[in-house]
Amino acid sequence: MNRTIDWDGDAIAIIDQTLLPHEERVLRLRDVDELAEAIRSLRVRGAPALGVASALGVALAVRGANDVESAAGRAAEKLAATRPTAVNLSWGIEQARAQAPKGAGAVLHAALELLEADVRTNRAMAELGAEWLAENVAHPVRVLTHCNTGALACVEVGTALGVIAAAHERGLVEEVLATETRPLLQGSRLTAWELKRLGIPFRLVADGAAPSVIARGVVGLVMVGADRIAANCDVANKIGTYPLALAAARAMVPFVVVAPESTRDASTTSGAEIRIEERDEDEVLGYAGKRVAPDGAHAMNPAFDVTPADLVTAIITEDRVIVPRLQ
Amino acid sequence: MNRTIDWDGDAIAIIDQTLLPHEERVLRLRDVDELAEAIRSLRVRGAPALGVASALGVALAVRGANDVESAAGRAAEKLAATRPTAVNLSWGIEQARAQAPKGAGAVLHAALELLEADVRTNRAMAELGAEWLAENVAHPVRVLTHCNTGALACVEVGTALGVIAAAHERGLVEEVLATETRPLLQGSRLTAWELKRLGIPFRLVADGAAPSVIARGVVGLVMVGADRIAANCDVANKIGTYPLALAAARAMVPFVVVAPESTRDASTTSGAEIRIEERDEDEVLGYAGKRVAPDGAHAMNPAFDVTPADLVTAIITEDRVIVPRLQ
Repeated sequence: MNRTIDWDGDAIAIIDQTLLPHEERVLRLRDVDELAEAIRSLRVRGAPALGVASALGVALAVRGANDVESAAGRAAEKLAATRPTAVNLSWGIEQARAQAPKGAGAVLHAALELLEADVRTNRAMAELGAEWLAENVAHPVRVLTHCNTGALACVEVGTALGVIAAAHERGLVEEVLATETRPLLQGSRLTAWELKRLGIPFRLVADGAAPSVIARGVVGLVMVGADRIAANCDVANKIGTYPLALAAARAMVPFVVVAPESTRDASTTSGAEIRIEERDEDEVLGYAGKRVAPDGAHAMNPAFDVTPADLVTAIITEDRVIVPRLQ
Repeated sequence: MNRTIDWDGDAIAIIDQTLLPHEERVLRLRDVDELAEAIRSLRVRGAPALGVASALGVALAVRGANDVESAAGRAAEKLAATRPTAVNLSWGIEQARAQAPKGAGAVLHAALELLEADVRTNRAMAELGAEWLAENVAHPVRVLTHCNTGALACVEVGTALGVIAAAHERGLVEEVLATETRPLLQGSRLTAWELKRLGIPFRLVADGAAPSVIARGVVGLVMVGADRIAANCDVANKIGTYPLALAAARAMVPFVVVAPESTRDASTTSGAEIRIEERDEDEVLGYAGKRVAPDGAHAMNPAFDVTPADLVTAIITEDRVIVPRLQ
């Protein structure tokens, strides 16, 4: 598999995730507008991948610019507006932009450093997470996960799905249950595609079904990613995460978040302060161009929800395991 | 609107719900096999409608039979096997079959009596429910509902949606939020179609989004139907009901079930005894007939879940309001 996102010397190369699982096509993005469109359309998505992509976007924007700082500023503004919830996006932008006074070469260098650091970070999370799982969960375990947190959400490896894959390699995972993740079906399209390639046994489950499957006692662990973690450990993640946390808490099943330190946002006190992206209602009213709801129907379409810290058993980063109730 | 289900003197006439909202077509079912297929395919669905349909199915089967009791027995067996969770189905069968010793005319008479009784029952529930809402919920209220519990789930009127419509007529309802209800999208297709015809303001919401919308404080009431209510008030209902109940409990929002007395099953002690129908995995692996998941992917597809009685604020039937915590 290609890296989800890479730099080919002249452009950002991404796998167009809107075409998966039926087609694997690499897109070359040559300027900030192409990247902004790709982010808004979720051709590239996943908090860590957005951090790397946005840094590379700033690098694209300052190439050949007379005034590197101004060009970086304009790119930063454009990219930050694409998706408001994932903190990694603005983090990536700032990492690259901070080098603008040193010139375009320094900006690109910083962005490429983020690209490589993402891989190292994910490998460290995968190892730490697999160790945590081996020590804290009866195994082999059936793990339930949500949305896509695999290689496709990062440069390589993944966050929650990276841990699951590492744990599977060690014989700790019996089966993965993956939610389909409406409205854009990242679970059915992307997570299923990755799990199949990894040779990990899995079944899909409708989002509304997952909580009762947890209640049935057949799930030993719920493991998800995050888009922003507030200072108090409230977790913003893909819409549909919160009901999994509610069900896990009631069933006394561990609910674990896997995310790099860059997803932690110390400046946000609690989940109540996190701005939740509202996406186009057409995503809910149909799918892939096929309209299901009657004409004139409208929809709410929040892209994320907030899981309160008291429902989170542990947060695994590349550096440590944070237990919110002990904070 | 035609009745969802009716007897035209010679056949069972149903609105084919698999074609809604884009086409309103009436199907005439002339024998038990046609009815069994229509039930399995969800051309007719909803616990109360299944009770009436199955009674009429027994009446169809005994027409012109030499041995009415044997014919009724064979029809009962065939119909009971179509869908295991909704208790109304077997209840309807037994109501009709009990008349078999008196002949085919008595069977048809009993089935037609169920048909008319369903309308009376639903009107009584709608009135009682609207009164309950007026007295117990700050209004005008934003109500969240799941799946389809309107006229399309019954002969006319509906259960939870019947209450909501009656409350709306009294000015008690500000807006309805309707879950899309994967995998078969009864919310997006059927509830949206009914709400639009009734002129009640509504928005759709993805199943996974509903719990966080409840947590946000914008929902004053969650109101759903039921397919089987155990003696201890555990409620089996459409998959995806349980997470709504969990979210409502945490947000201290009333979670109310509307169902006729025939949905109560005194012979089932608790929800743990309720057999949950597992439907074809292809319903989850695609969307509206379009395959989404990669080849080789599998899915779990439970059609119902069980909401424990401690999460249920009230159960409204045609006769009374049951408060589980006071039982």
